[in-house]
Amino acid sequence: MMIEAAAKMAQWLRLEDGFTLIAHTSPDGDTIGSSLAMFYILTCMGKRVQVVCEHIVPYLYSFLPYAEAFNTPDTAEKSYKNAIAIDCADKNRMGKAVGIYNASMLTGSIDHHKTNTAYGDYVLHDENASATGELVFHLWQHLGVAVEKSKTALDIACSLFTAISTDTGNFSYCNATPGSFRAAAALVEYGIDIAEINRLVYRTLPIGKTRLIGYVLSSMRLYNDARIGAAILLWEDFLRFGAIPEDVEGIIDYIRDVDSIEIAMILRQTQKGDFKVSMRSKRYADVSAIAGRFGGGGHLRAAGCTMQGQPEAILEQLLQVSTDALGQ
Amino acid sequence: MMIEAAAKMAQWLRLEDGFTLIAHTSPDGDTIGSSLAMFYILTCMGKRVQVVCEHIVPYLYSFLPYAEAFNTPDTAEKSYKNAIAIDCADKNRMGKAVGIYNASMLTGSIDHHKTNTAYGDYVLHDENASATGELVFHLWQHLGVAVEKSKTALDIACSLFTAISTDTGNFSYCNATPGSFRAAAALVEYGIDIAEINRLVYRTLPIGKTRLIGYVLSSMRLYNDARIGAAILLWEDFLRFGAIPEDVEGIIDYIRDVDSIEIAMILRQTQKGDFKVSMRSKRYADVSAIAGRFGGGGHLRAAGCTMQGQPEAILEQLLQVSTDALGQ
Repeated sequence: MMIEAAAKMAQWLRLEDGFTLIAHTSPDGDTIGSSLAMFYILTCMGKRVQVVCEHIVPYLYSFLPYAEAFNTPDTAEKSYKNAIAIDCADKNRMGKAVGIYNASMLTGSIDHHKTNTAYGDYVLHDENASATGELVFHLWQHLGVAVEKSKTALDIACSLFTAISTDTGNFSYCNATPGSFRAAAALVEYGIDIAEINRLVYRTLPIGKTRLIGYVLSSMRLYNDARIGAAILLWEDFLRFGAIPEDVEGIIDYIRDVDSIEIAMILRQTQKGDFKVSMRSKRYADVSAIAGRFGGGGHLRAAGCTMQGQPEAILEQLLQVSTDALGQ
Repeated sequence: MMIEAAAKMAQWLRLEDGFTLIAHTSPDGDTIGSSLAMFYILTCMGKRVQVVCEHIVPYLYSFLPYAEAFNTPDTAEKSYKNAIAIDCADKNRMGKAVGIYNASMLTGSIDHHKTNTAYGDYVLHDENASATGELVFHLWQHLGVAVEKSKTALDIACSLFTAISTDTGNFSYCNATPGSFRAAAALVEYGIDIAEINRLVYRTLPIGKTRLIGYVLSSMRLYNDARIGAAILLWEDFLRFGAIPEDVEGIIDYIRDVDSIEIAMILRQTQKGDFKVSMRSKRYADVSAIAGRFGGGGHLRAAGCTMQGQPEAILEQLLQVSTDALGQ
């Protein structure tokens, strides 16, 4: 983080009043936690402030203090002079809330994405930060807002810990730096209950998703000496388990985690009948190339495409290309 | 950690030569990682040193540098003058290796368990440390062994990070203190690949265990408005999935993690036919009392017992007592 940028932003926050904090669409733990932390900090400074997001906060993050206070762009107060985009790499990430942003007299952006376009009058950006929450933590320390030992300090620390934890996969991804761990140390120092945060964020599943995981792991098939693992989820399976399409998120990791697996794939039938194919690889296979062969794309280790037809025929096509990608 | 105790132990390590480091029986990540880190540190100091454990290092930890060098009490060098018990609350935890310990001229103990009996000539003990690895980290810093930036420093850091990470559930249990996070920050600073360590320790499962998880989640039954979840694993299920009894470890957490569940239980048939019952509770139910009714015991949130008979009849008995424990 650039100290100078933090100082400039801190001065703005001290001098002005009336702030709209804007989280990105399909909000995650970082944008929600960082926005709520900024909300508290500005409140402690005696400022009028509101949090806004186009979409509602997922149930998963509803435990965060004041999470219920998020406004939609429609219900938000329009008279506030200042707006800050939180964890939004570009203006599009604000969705419909960008209208409030563009109509504000002074604007800012706090973000850690590499692709940040440095929009706004005050930009606090560091692509080496593991999370926007890490930047808000430093800004908080810089501001020296006197909230130590209070219930509010606990709320800020809880929100920022959740932000950093979720963007680093609970301190397990390679973006978790010494700085992330040091920020976490300082936040735990405030007395937050990390065991409870972890339980709520990572260890609370609806029964429908649990059944779906069970079905995928029981029914997945192994190919090429168990180096490829694949599961098919039909629309009727979701109905049978009382699961929703979002529940499939993360389940592919269970397939990839099998020790022998290099390529994992899940073919998920959508309500209209086509198949969304998700692919992951562990060490060397380029799944973006596989997805690319079927009109999709993505990253080296995570990619996807959409395909039409019978699931067995689709799987057959995917396996042919995947076998080549195994390279042996 | 008591600075004085660390200074005293550091002086002993500097003055003497020939150290046997003893890990506890059924070794876990903390005792293995801490022992290996001490092994490197003493080696860097030019000392003759060996690591000893009654049991072999689980496959899970075989990625740790030099993990293959563990001796059994039988194959260990007997002429070394000094012995240090690592992560052993009392002498019994050393198993058969206690013979080497008792025969040594000078002995030490590095441990974080509350129940440590303060045996040995040099005791480095702090029950507030999340892991013995945290104590070894401080001892390492105290010794100031000049291994910075070297491959050996990376090996020490990797072993200590694994020790602290495994004893704190990857920094998610309530024993993960600001000190644990700060130690982790310093260890990550050495350049270790935490994403790879996490993948190897937490995200690598044999196919047999994966199938077992799938079966448990697909077949588990819900009772009392889904506040009780129970699964039965017959001996033939293990054969069917190519799983071993140890594979059941941790699977009960998937049941407890279902949002509605208060009490989780798994009835596992052993090879000789009886059933080992494992129980977990989430917030208020006392599962040690339930287990106690059937001759078992444990903690408030984790307990177990062994029962004879048909699985359905056993489950029926458990459910009756568990329903009372739900309190409504």
